[in-house]
Amino acid sequence: MLKDSESTIAKIHRWEHGKLHPPIDDKLATEEPLEIRVRGQNIAITMRTPGHDEELAAGFLVTEGLIYDRDDVKEIVHCKNAEAARLRNTLNVFLAPNVEIDIKSLTRHVFASSSCGVCGKATIESVRQNFDPIESSLRVSPDIIISLPNILRKTQVTFNQTGGLHAAAIFDTKGKLVVCREDVGRHNAVDKILGYGFLNDIQFRDHILMVSGRASFEIMQKALAARLPILAAVSAPSSLAVDFAQENGQTLIGFVRGETMNIYTHPERIK
Amino acid sequence: MLKDSESTIAKIHRWEHGKLHPPIDDKLATEEPLEIRVRGQNIAITMRTPGHDEELAAGFLVTEGLIYDRDDVKEIVHCKNAEAARLRNTLNVFLAPNVEIDIKSLTRHVFASSSCGVCGKATIESVRQNFDPIESSLRVSPDIIISLPNILRKTQVTFNQTGGLHAAAIFDTKGKLVVCREDVGRHNAVDKILGYGFLNDIQFRDHILMVSGRASFEIMQKALAARLPILAAVSAPSSLAVDFAQENGQTLIGFVRGETMNIYTHPERIK
Repeated sequence: MLKDSESTIAKIHRWEHGKLHPPIDDKLATEEPLEIRVRGQNIAITMRTPGHDEELAAGFLVTEGLIYDRDDVKEIVHCKNAEAARLRNTLNVFLAPNVEIDIKSLTRHVFASSSCGVCGKATIESVRQNFDPIESSLRVSPDIIISLPNILRKTQVTFNQTGGLHAAAIFDTKGKLVVCREDVGRHNAVDKILGYGFLNDIQFRDHILMVSGRASFEIMQKALAARLPILAAVSAPSSLAVDFAQENGQTLIGFVRGETMNIYTHPERIK
Repeated sequence: MLKDSESTIAKIHRWEHGKLHPPIDDKLATEEPLEIRVRGQNIAITMRTPGHDEELAAGFLVTEGLIYDRDDVKEIVHCKNAEAARLRNTLNVFLAPNVEIDIKSLTRHVFASSSCGVCGKATIESVRQNFDPIESSLRVSPDIIISLPNILRKTQVTFNQTGGLHAAAIFDTKGKLVVCREDVGRHNAVDKILGYGFLNDIQFRDHILMVSGRASFEIMQKALAARLPILAAVSAPSSLAVDFAQENGQTLIGFVRGETMNIYTHPERIK
């Protein structure tokens, strides 16, 4: 298959009008593994769409609560080993020497061998980071929120070609797009935009995070890590996303479609 | 919020006709963490929709290549510790004493500290299991495949209430539904149906796996583990899903919508 970074061309057989047509070219969303290494240690392998890998790694580390300041990261580079360099699927994160990280705290890669006596609590606690709740007096007009899905859709270049990608985007309170990223993994799309902010030292404290799909607990936790007061989703939130948003002062909006939306938590910010 | 196992009722504010309406009840897809323990060791935490947890755990272990035979599993039970029992979010898997499992091989939870010299290859290899390719002379009529999304949609009880769940289902070659499961995580929905087959000693070698969303590499690998020759998806496949299906003898069909579908690999089975 021919590949550029975000899409891949394949031959497909299309069934239409009751018959199988001769093979034609079709664009697919590219999916490849990315291994993230910190201080030489493999901390995560994620299936992602290549491109903006440095942002993905930075966003992942920020939203896992492992790094906080821009100065924590010295450099993020693809592995220079010959085979790895060709594939561009291994990324080395070089942290400042004074940064202490607790790799065992990674929620996606739990390997603890704790006793069963605390397992009920341990389960919940182990997937939760400890970020402070949002206290923000930000106000946004409902008309702005309703306008976002159209802008997002127009920006989703690769989705429009492949139908196979999630998108996440940051908007300001006037509805102006700041950054949009696409990925086969929806967490990755969010990590990429938050990593973009982190690497460029841009705060999103007065911004809106919009996602093209559903809102899960993990998405809300990532938004909290980046101090985003408002999250809007084109599709449904989960029960835990709503619980988490309520508890942490986040405004969570779902089903933003046409002229309607559902506000699940902290509606006071939508005026 | 009021909860039954698969859906949760919450108060929402709906924006419609240019104004915010008083709070109303709405159903959300339930999302809760599940910790899977094997021989007392925590091997995975996954965010899932409660229900069919034993199937989820069994399917996860099968598709990770850790167990093979029904006899490998003695019992799968929720943790009986008081707090954990209330939450029902911790599951203990008791394996037969003769089963040797390599927990380090788990793809979702990689913690290896290998040197960078092999990282290019290690990255790809570490996410791949070693299942033999499919060699199946199964043939299915295109009309059957086209009929599946409607049946799936009618079966998605919780999705129809919440809009927030993925579904996976097994059909026979006449288009008869064998089992359908829903979950906030699409890998979990697949794990649940494959775990259902495993726990009930039902082979899916002459069946079709249908998923409500996209087809990724991981979904194809799970289908391969269960020896399913045909996978049909309502939405798009990724590039790696197509590569993997081609290489492993799997028929991969996407965009099954209305009277049309795209056949990406091994079209010879669709007659």
